[in-house]
Amino acid sequence: MTDTASRPAVDPETAGAPENSGPVDYTPLNRRRLIAPGPVEVEPRVLAQLAQPQMHHRAPEGVAKLTQTRAQLTELLGAPGYESVIVTGSGTAAFEGALVSLVPGGAKVVSAQAGKFSERWGEMAGRFGYDTRTVSRPWGELLDPAEVAHAARDAHTLLVTHSETSTGALHDLQAIVAAAKADNPDLLVIADCITSYGVAELRPEEWGVDVIVSGSQKGTATPPGLGLLLFSPQARERLIPDTTRGFYLDMQRELKGQMAGSTPQTPAINLIYALSASLERLLSVPREVLWAEKKRQNDALIAAGVAMGARSWASRTSPAVTVLCPPEGIGGKAVAAQLAGMGQRALPGQAPHEDTVFRVSNMGYADRYDALSIAGILEDALGALGAKFERGAGVAAAWNALK
Amino acid sequence: MTDTASRPAVDPETAGAPENSGPVDYTPLNRRRLIAPGPVEVEPRVLAQLAQPQMHHRAPEGVAKLTQTRAQLTELLGAPGYESVIVTGSGTAAFEGALVSLVPGGAKVVSAQAGKFSERWGEMAGRFGYDTRTVSRPWGELLDPAEVAHAARDAHTLLVTHSETSTGALHDLQAIVAAAKADNPDLLVIADCITSYGVAELRPEEWGVDVIVSGSQKGTATPPGLGLLLFSPQARERLIPDTTRGFYLDMQRELKGQMAGSTPQTPAINLIYALSASLERLLSVPREVLWAEKKRQNDALIAAGVAMGARSWASRTSPAVTVLCPPEGIGGKAVAAQLAGMGQRALPGQAPHEDTVFRVSNMGYADRYDALSIAGILEDALGALGAKFERGAGVAAAWNALK
Repeated sequence: MTDTASRPAVDPETAGAPENSGPVDYTPLNRRRLIAPGPVEVEPRVLAQLAQPQMHHRAPEGVAKLTQTRAQLTELLGAPGYESVIVTGSGTAAFEGALVSLVPGGAKVVSAQAGKFSERWGEMAGRFGYDTRTVSRPWGELLDPAEVAHAARDAHTLLVTHSETSTGALHDLQAIVAAAKADNPDLLVIADCITSYGVAELRPEEWGVDVIVSGSQKGTATPPGLGLLLFSPQARERLIPDTTRGFYLDMQRELKGQMAGSTPQTPAINLIYALSASLERLLSVPREVLWAEKKRQNDALIAAGVAMGARSWASRTSPAVTVLCPPEGIGGKAVAAQLAGMGQRALPGQAPHEDTVFRVSNMGYADRYDALSIAGILEDALGALGAKFERGAGVAAAWNALK
Repeated sequence: MTDTASRPAVDPETAGAPENSGPVDYTPLNRRRLIAPGPVEVEPRVLAQLAQPQMHHRAPEGVAKLTQTRAQLTELLGAPGYESVIVTGSGTAAFEGALVSLVPGGAKVVSAQAGKFSERWGEMAGRFGYDTRTVSRPWGELLDPAEVAHAARDAHTLLVTHSETSTGALHDLQAIVAAAKADNPDLLVIADCITSYGVAELRPEEWGVDVIVSGSQKGTATPPGLGLLLFSPQARERLIPDTTRGFYLDMQRELKGQMAGSTPQTPAINLIYALSASLERLLSVPREVLWAEKKRQNDALIAAGVAMGARSWASRTSPAVTVLCPPEGIGGKAVAAQLAGMGQRALPGQAPHEDTVFRVSNMGYADRYDALSIAGILEDALGALGAKFERGAGVAAAWNALK
């Protein structure tokens, strides 16, 4: 049976509702879900951390919590040689901290771009007056390691995005860094791992990534407000003392403070407690299990979409976000709006590709059975918008991928 | 493909986990769910009510909240002629309040029994020395209206259970009350609607049910702690002043106080705020939509179970709880234990039928997409226990029933 029905509704006849004329909608009874690529669903146990009697970051417990959380952040990637910094700010703040604290004035910075977020890092480097060059591929495509390496052959720093949240591409960070460093061993690599950290396979030591940047509201399933950084030993040596391109985001001073147990400025300490509680759950399995399971969940969502006539924008897909070109005749904005009407917070594409795709994610405190739920939600949403597919095709494809 | 695999595990090869020998289990990453027939999942917005600055039940806001909540409770059943009472206690406390406040000493009470909970009401009536008779059917079967009517032909009060949570049977309350009152128009009917209130079709005015009893942790998706009662005008006239069989549970005094805006004793006022918030959501759709949607969700779970070789214990099923006899060779306790190991809190049967069945429910703050999740969870659980079925059969059956 082909399902082209409008929004699912209760049949008043079977519902025994003689006083209601016409079909009524059950969707007000839906559970509201965040299925966007951040912020994500947060475990109640993690949220409860926020509401403890107000903790103080200079008290011994606050100092211990900062130290514990920083250790958990490196443990999540199996990178004991790295040192982490927790910034009170967004992932962008953390990225800026890495940039201005590591790159001297006038240095050559190469920005590898293939989507909204990677473009932002180039814009940021330009703002600070660095000798900024871009090497780019169209949105949705993958960066070419050889092209990036060629562009970065005489650069000081390479800015590269691992999981491009605007297109759903998981760039081959390992290959890109290997190629670029083969030509330029002193190249500093700052990687936007905002949506890949804690979600996709990421081995900074083995791959030679100098700085990992992320944010609390993505794979670590914590409310927004914290930027996360991991610095390699080599990067730490290259941190600039007293940079003139920032004060709050001076990572040299911040790292020094945090390694001694405290932040130079007041941190969002409640969020740090929450982050630690969330990392505890992620650390309860080998990281390979976490990565494999998140990949499987995302693959299931892609399979569901494909079974309904959608297609993945990217060929190498990020496990953090399912970016789908909707079935013919349906725009990404309409899908996101339909989902919102069902109480499910997803996203359309990003300008100028708002209508090209829609974006959903199972990145946060959500499991494989939630991915199955999302497949059902997508069936109802796309069906309501007139997509033609056999009812059950999306759900079956998702479940099959979750084997 | 027939799935007889043990608990789903990550393949270390595809997971790229060379250091892990043997398959590792992803289940620690599961989201924990309450899928038992109470307590149930509670909406965060409802939980947040509990944590407001401590409210006072004698303050004008507390008085207004009690009055508002009592009105919501009758509105949920479309029974404006009824008056509700909120007891701080369990559903059993509420039932006891109805019994001792309505039935004079020595009166004949008939207890209609076909499961654990209906048996409890007979035991309770015996404890108070009423002339207690039982009319019963084996667990899992339905009460026969004619049998019940015959037993109650000269009784003062009939105690009857609408949704029998131990067996999954939805007794035909309408037919039972119609038959019993045809023979005995003065019969007082106290109905255990603990798991049917806010879940199953229930029309106390049209059906002639004098007292409805429920609890906060079931269909109203609120934490436990409140017993809920609705009294018909006829029942209110028959409330006994100064009953000697109770003080705290004296409903005559309680109703009088609550109709004037306050409770004689200190109520769990935080829970009343939470209950009101939860009722707001349930009242956002016509009650027929709520009933139809909850029935559809439960039918989906039964369909999933049947597709995997399980069967419903009851022929007329309660939408509040899915009570399934597991596939051959598998006990109810093993299923509940397997689900618990997966982070999913369900229940086995109740003594002496612990192993006959297992019980799951989507009664609380959970929607049709959560029912789909539970179908997947049941596939993994029953598959791990060796049940033979085609993978996807349960999920497909559930999704088909959710049309």
